[in-house]
Amino acid sequence: MSGMKRTTEKNLMVFSGRAHLDLAEEVAQQLGTGLVPTAAYEFANSEIYVRYEESVRGSDAFVIQCHTAPVNEWIMEHLIMVDALKRASAKRITVVMPFYGYARQDKKHRGREPISARLMADLFKTAGADRLISVDLHADQIQGFFDGPVDHLMALPILADYVKEKYGDQQLAVVSPDAGRIKVAERWSARLGGVPLAFIHKSRRTDRPNETVANRVVGDVQGRICVLVDDMIDTAGTITKATEALMADGAAGVIIAATHPILSGPAVDRLKNSSATEVVVTNTLPLSDEQRFDKLTCLSIAPLISRAIKEVFEDGSVTSMFDGNA
Amino acid sequence: MSGMKRTTEKNLMVFSGRAHLDLAEEVAQQLGTGLVPTAAYEFANSEIYVRYEESVRGSDAFVIQCHTAPVNEWIMEHLIMVDALKRASAKRITVVMPFYGYARQDKKHRGREPISARLMADLFKTAGADRLISVDLHADQIQGFFDGPVDHLMALPILADYVKEKYGDQQLAVVSPDAGRIKVAERWSARLGGVPLAFIHKSRRTDRPNETVANRVVGDVQGRICVLVDDMIDTAGTITKATEALMADGAAGVIIAATHPILSGPAVDRLKNSSATEVVVTNTLPLSDEQRFDKLTCLSIAPLISRAIKEVFEDGSVTSMFDGNA
Amino acid sequence: MSGMKRTTEKNLMVFSGRAHLDLAEEVAQQLGTGLVPTAAYEFANSEIYVRYEESVRGSDAFVIQCHTAPVNEWIMEHLIMVDALKRASAKRITVVMPFYGYARQDKKHRGREPISARLMADLFKTAGADRLISVDLHADQIQGFFDGPVDHLMALPILADYVKEKYGDQQLAVVSPDAGRIKVAERWSARLGGVPLAFIHKSRRTDRPNETVANRVVGDVQGRICVLVDDMIDTAGTITKATEALMADGAAGVIIAATHPILSGPAVDRLKNSSATEVVVTNTLPLSDEQRFDKLTCLSIAPLISRAIKEVFEDGSVTSMFDGNA
Amino acid sequence: MSGMKRTTEKNLMVFSGRAHLDLAEEVAQQLGTGLVPTAAYEFANSEIYVRYEESVRGSDAFVIQCHTAPVNEWIMEHLIMVDALKRASAKRITVVMPFYGYARQDKKHRGREPISARLMADLFKTAGADRLISVDLHADQIQGFFDGPVDHLMALPILADYVKEKYGDQQLAVVSPDAGRIKVAERWSARLGGVPLAFIHKSRRTDRPNETVANRVVGDVQGRICVLVDDMIDTAGTITKATEALMADGAAGVIIAATHPILSGPAVDRLKNSSATEVVVTNTLPLSDEQRFDKLTCLSIAPLISRAIKEVFEDGSVTSMFDGNA
Amino acid sequence: MSGMKRTTEKNLMVFSGRAHLDLAEEVAQQLGTGLVPTAAYEFANSEIYVRYEESVRGSDAFVIQCHTAPVNEWIMEHLIMVDALKRASAKRITVVMPFYGYARQDKKHRGREPISARLMADLFKTAGADRLISVDLHADQIQGFFDGPVDHLMALPILADYVKEKYGDQQLAVVSPDAGRIKVAERWSARLGGVPLAFIHKSRRTDRPNETVANRVVGDVQGRICVLVDDMIDTAGTITKATEALMADGAAGVIIAATHPILSGPAVDRLKNSSATEVVVTNTLPLSDEQRFDKLTCLSIAPLISRAIKEVFEDGSVTSMFDGNA
Amino acid sequence: MSGMKRTTEKNLMVFSGRAHLDLAEEVAQQLGTGLVPTAAYEFANSEIYVRYEESVRGSDAFVIQCHTAPVNEWIMEHLIMVDALKRASAKRITVVMPFYGYARQDKKHRGREPISARLMADLFKTAGADRLISVDLHADQIQGFFDGPVDHLMALPILADYVKEKYGDQQLAVVSPDAGRIKVAERWSARLGGVPLAFIHKSRRTDRPNETVANRVVGDVQGRICVLVDDMIDTAGTITKATEALMADGAAGVIIAATHPILSGPAVDRLKNSSATEVVVTNTLPLSDEQRFDKLTCLSIAPLISRAIKEVFEDGSVTSMFDGNA
Repeated sequence: MSGMKRTTEKNLMVFSGRAHLDLAEEVAQQLGTGLVPTAAYEFANSEIYVRYEESVRGSDAFVIQCHTAPVNEWIMEHLIMVDALKRASAKRITVVMPFYGYARQDKKHRGREPISARLMADLFKTAGADRLISVDLHADQIQGFFDGPVDHLMALPILADYVKEKYGDQQLAVVSPDAGRIKVAERWSARLGGVPLAFIHKSRRTDRPNETVANRVVGDVQGRICVLVDDMIDTAGTITKATEALMADGAAGVIIAATHPILSGPAVDRLKNSSATEVVVTNTLPLSDEQRFDKLTCLSIAPLISRAIKEVFEDGSVTSMFDGNA
Repeated sequence: MSGMKRTTEKNLMVFSGRAHLDLAEEVAQQLGTGLVPTAAYEFANSEIYVRYEESVRGSDAFVIQCHTAPVNEWIMEHLIMVDALKRASAKRITVVMPFYGYARQDKKHRGREPISARLMADLFKTAGADRLISVDLHADQIQGFFDGPVDHLMALPILADYVKEKYGDQQLAVVSPDAGRIKVAERWSARLGGVPLAFIHKSRRTDRPNETVANRVVGDVQGRICVLVDDMIDTAGTITKATEALMADGAAGVIIAATHPILSGPAVDRLKNSSATEVVVTNTLPLSDEQRFDKLTCLSIAPLISRAIKEVFEDGSVTSMFDGNA
Repeated sequence: MSGMKRTTEKNLMVFSGRAHLDLAEEVAQQLGTGLVPTAAYEFANSEIYVRYEESVRGSDAFVIQCHTAPVNEWIMEHLIMVDALKRASAKRITVVMPFYGYARQDKKHRGREPISARLMADLFKTAGADRLISVDLHADQIQGFFDGPVDHLMALPILADYVKEKYGDQQLAVVSPDAGRIKVAERWSARLGGVPLAFIHKSRRTDRPNETVANRVVGDVQGRICVLVDDMIDTAGTITKATEALMADGAAGVIIAATHPILSGPAVDRLKNSSATEVVVTNTLPLSDEQRFDKLTCLSIAPLISRAIKEVFEDGSVTSMFDGNA
Repeated sequence: MSGMKRTTEKNLMVFSGRAHLDLAEEVAQQLGTGLVPTAAYEFANSEIYVRYEESVRGSDAFVIQCHTAPVNEWIMEHLIMVDALKRASAKRITVVMPFYGYARQDKKHRGREPISARLMADLFKTAGADRLISVDLHADQIQGFFDGPVDHLMALPILADYVKEKYGDQQLAVVSPDAGRIKVAERWSARLGGVPLAFIHKSRRTDRPNETVANRVVGDVQGRICVLVDDMIDTAGTITKATEALMADGAAGVIIAATHPILSGPAVDRLKNSSATEVVVTNTLPLSDEQRFDKLTCLSIAPLISRAIKEVFEDGSVTSMFDGNA
Repeated sequence: MSGMKRTTEKNLMVFSGRAHLDLAEEVAQQLGTGLVPTAAYEFANSEIYVRYEESVRGSDAFVIQCHTAPVNEWIMEHLIMVDALKRASAKRITVVMPFYGYARQDKKHRGREPISARLMADLFKTAGADRLISVDLHADQIQGFFDGPVDHLMALPILADYVKEKYGDQQLAVVSPDAGRIKVAERWSARLGGVPLAFIHKSRRTDRPNETVANRVVGDVQGRICVLVDDMIDTAGTITKATEALMADGAAGVIIAATHPILSGPAVDRLKNSSATEVVVTNTLPLSDEQRFDKLTCLSIAPLISRAIKEVFEDGSVTSMFDGNA
Repeated sequence: MSGMKRTTEKNLMVFSGRAHLDLAEEVAQQLGTGLVPTAAYEFANSEIYVRYEESVRGSDAFVIQCHTAPVNEWIMEHLIMVDALKRASAKRITVVMPFYGYARQDKKHRGREPISARLMADLFKTAGADRLISVDLHADQIQGFFDGPVDHLMALPILADYVKEKYGDQQLAVVSPDAGRIKVAERWSARLGGVPLAFIHKSRRTDRPNETVANRVVGDVQGRICVLVDDMIDTAGTITKATEALMADGAAGVIIAATHPILSGPAVDRLKNSSATEVVVTNTLPLSDEQRFDKLTCLSIAPLISRAIKEVFEDGSVTSMFDGNA
């Protein structure tokens, strides 16, 4: 028979955009390798240039980028990196987005809006992505936006175990800041051993729709340390108002926990000045010095991501990483 | 210049699968036309055969099918109808699914599950669908599963106006049977003039995950007529347990309202025997004689669908149908 | 150089839908493995749920489902299984359909019909199928409906060798029950050592199209044991009428042989009551107890399928399985 | 409201490749228009150049090309013409291929063959074809190879009516030259008023597969004028051997009728020297002077094609063109 | 026959991103309409939100955005606008990008680079663009990057006619600043009546590749007013060095003409301080006050774009706009 | 766990169309293997038939075809070979086209032309090509026409090193025969150690556009051996006119060097009769005996192609093959 045989090898290579190199380096290090050297910069007119400085042919490529502000800049760099990998003959391209940009535009809230979260999934597919890894998607349905495998990681074990260890001996309650996200609070409640649940109901004026007049606590929080949980903290408006409502309702204290620390605009001031005693987040997004403050605790998501990459590379199981946890 | 010019005409044609002909005929009649005569039957081995009995070339085709049980049968007929339209040169094919089959499998609840709701969107796209019309999708994100325009209609005005007219002079509360669907209850609350809101919290045993031990009412329902709202009633287990929990908590009465009356298995008995005084649904799914009972009120969804089809055909606005409503 | 190398392994995994577990288990056993444990059931409203109970990441997956009645149910389960495999990161997905559902709708017999056989190919591609394995497609052209490799297996050697061994010492003729399928009879004739060929011509009334008035034998069958061959037996109307026509024309006996035993509706009674002395089929479709009868011989197709899977997995040759045979 | 409205016009434009301009001009003339002026030629290295000499923007374009020898040349010109139309903003592109090139490679006769007929469908789709019109496809299944509407025209009425008028008062039989194409003969038989049917069985030697040793007539042709029918005549080997077999079997005469006159290599000599008294074909392929001979009658297919184009352009019915005919 | 007929209307609607509203408004005004009212802003974390404030259903939509800095921001807004149009049922979406972002990354200059210009074409296709309009693409081949019609407009007539009128009575030469763009200079030379041509050859040191040591004028410019032409001016380094080389070589003066005034970083200072007497550009990109200076003349591209949109909308000819011009 | 593991092997197989078997055999031999035995011929009506005579399942297939005249014939054979590989389960298909057919139609030179070079890329993708290898594309942008990896090889080192060795001790100049291709000349100049550069400017009559009246040498060639470089020689009109212009301008001699020897029509005579002393090409296209002449030197491209195939197969680096060279 014609032909030349050879055993197939696969080669794990980790790449990173420039949005959050610290996280990517931590991930690569935990995998026992380094980031692939990459030239990346803007031209004078702000167009992005990317080039890999060693051969990526045949690689099992994992491309990490955090969709932090300026979001469009970093998403475009991410897409361009994928295109360069495709054209340089990477064998498989896994896009790793610890925070999925535009996840909140996951539906048309009103007519004639885009569904940008679906658009992002399609753009990455078009650029050449074979698969996605992300952490705590704003809605689970976003997994279904991508036409291919999505490994959806959960930061809940990391965050909740931290809270449990530190506050587990106190009377706790888990609180959702919004009626639409109580499911997440239910998972927290289970993880913390079945503590009571509450949520904040935003009453609206009936004569002026969309105008909130009051944040009412639904559920009993009297005398309890409230763990106020969400997937992300953006401007921190909702969550700090919720904090004050809880305190007004007799809570013994408030701990805020969220996976993604966007911390835009007034967020840091609001959190600093709020009655919350601790704000626990992960590093799915980079924190500038200005975004750090005393009450803020930032846990590393790198062990979760590096383990997921390892399972994907070795055809292990990502599902098993969360078995028995929630 | 070469060529022969002619003014372009468009031709609205309405088609229906066999799952719920009554609804389709009502829709066609309201549009001022009739259903296109169609041969459809099963072969001996249960394969479905479909053929249109008049030319559909160049038509603006709307194909209605209700995804009622047996769901797979009717979805496959729906797909085959779309294929036949595509191959017979229909100009544009709009799939009308008043109830979207498999909508509840809109995410992976656990690893190694399908996302069947996305799969359905892709199957219809592949068969030749250009656009979708559906009513009260289980999750708004399902709009993003289809790669094309989706007109998402809401039955809320029909249901809520009925409730308002009949019960509007009493003390009402709107109740969500599940923590995950409070957003819908908020829209009802607004529509009913800002009445109070509550939800049922299912406590789970911490030693045996997923086992519900209690349905606790979160919010105050004392002395109020509770409107218990959901998008669908399947086996009616959750909703009838919620009804009893509300009564136990001092509610003055319970009205159940939902868009989609699936009413599987024990649903009818449970609803009949429950403390609810009225169950209000629409005819997005057909009701057999066995599924009808005294307390059940079924409102027609046909005016909503026929108006949406008319707006789509005439390049009007579907969004405007819901303006000022919610 | 960056990166971490590792020898690539591939892992054969066999999955089965619920339509015909016996066959799938036989296939898996012959491959030296077992079926992957799978949860599959219907919800109350008849929607299908599927979940794999162990990791399938990176697997070379073969998903077996027989498209028996209720056909749409089993095809939809098949599609959903493929979707779940795709999203769970199977490396390659081969759909194994011993009987290809809707194969007879492989063309438009009249205007405004679907071409459902092509539609099925596209639906499986969309769900995530990389390749197909099937047995005795109703038309060879169906291979061309799928955009990817199709391994088309032939049951002829199994059936014909059985007939040859049992009846080879008698005067045989091979008969096609229909003018359109004489090619198959020619292959049988060759396999049986060049025995004579005949076919049944269905005359039609010229004033009433599509109404058959007579079954005329074209070719000489006088005094011969006729092997009446077809790809499938559905209601057995054509084939039992052909049997009687052959006997009326002086045949010494009739043996019916077909790959796919659909045996719908009146088929069993017709075959039992016919002049045929033996009906030979394979188990590409499951047979219920009611479908079994004394004259029926069912040969196993499992060795053929398991060998094909082995060749595909090991990059061997499926073509060579049929070399020198026909 | 913003925007500027305008009534939509559609503009029928007919284009032709260089393979068979006579036919295309006849078609355009019958439609009441002319061919769009087109520059087309080969560069020195045999690459083809095409350019339209007037604007085609927004047109409903019908591009006619006959896939005659050199087939690859003309198919490539056809593809390039479609690409140019797509990029020049034609609104809809209908590919008209009176003879579909590579139609005979519609399945894998053996392993490791292409399915070129499917490949052609995909190439035209890729180039930009929205729909196809063709005449007497070698297999009906080829309709299913194209992902879009295919109007499949039949020359049978034209050919059979000619034969009926000229020979209808004689004792006729319809004969298929090959076991695989008896279905076509059945349609002829019906169209000619139910005349008897026969076919030629090619016996093969069992020790040397694929070697034909005899052409045996199956059916009774004694004393009848045999109409030997096929979809195409290529080298005329099969059909002239069939002619002699029929004469040897006592036929009173042989008329050969086929849609597509490929007439390659020895075809003309074989037909001239055969016992057939007339050979009736259509002009789906061009005939050179060398390919014309006394016994040959060539009927024009242009009325069929021009009527089909008119129906397609005007959203009429192509199916109705054949109603009541077969 | 079933159905309801209606004459089809098309509705031209013009949309604009926020990058260069002045140009879009000028275009809309020349078309006799206004821009469709659109809400567009950034969320706190820099994600972009877009919504159309009136119905766009069925529209023939033209979406204008200038890819000026920050390029990624405006391209993403452009993509999101297209997605929103697609989902809101626009009938046809034409993307108008007077300057095509990333056009210079139209090939891999070295291995492992992206081809971002192709990526952009694919991203817009994925988002839902049916067609493109652009001005003076950096390479004509970029037209081939988009899978659909591209109307490629040329600013040459506008620029050259201005130069001709103002300087036509003097001794002119046309000069290309780079060996790779002499074709453009040839078109200018023809348009200006056949004036002489020259180009600047950048010599490179052989020991240190990519380092330019000298700009040598190839061709005779002695005593002539040199029109130094290019498609864009970015940092103005090349073109101002070319200016000085021309003056050193005896040129009587230098006029710089280019379509796209990117004018990044040091561009304005370089141009101001250069020996060029006039810099002529168009407004395909917005100019800030800081980017305007005395020698700069900015001609409007709006008449060209509005006429092209009109031709596209009315199925006229864009090609004819440039006939007899070059 | 279920399943059967096995180490993955990959198998390099080299295939060749019939256009230039010598080159393919040389490539295969240098790789240490032979061409896969393939049946390929034309049917009587010029349709091409292809079949592989051994199993190709799972192979890493490289399919070589030279797009020489008759170009359409060989491209179609190439496409059909790819289709057969795809359907026979090759694992990866790399199309090797030493000369890329239709590369010169890489843009619309005028309205209503095709972009055939993009069309070819799409046709190969559709047929099943995963990746391309080609040599000296007419424009670098053609890499961007293919949706996948393209390895673009350069013959410059082979050609330039030959010229350097033979003529390196003389006074050289590098000359581009056309203003549009000076970039290539710049790369030659660098490779030859920084020798001077010139180009031929075709003046056109201003009253009759597109008519060349004179070939003017821009740059100084006095007393130098001019190396006239291009990517291909087709009819040799441009290049021989350039040769004479150089001699008239005082050149000491002319050497013509080009990668692709198309040598159509009058090319051989023109070159023989020209003042050029040597014509250096490679064998990316086959040369007939009539195309060979004394002054012609043909260098083999096989080492370049075989090394690239080896790098691709072994996941090495193709980029590194050209590092430090240009």
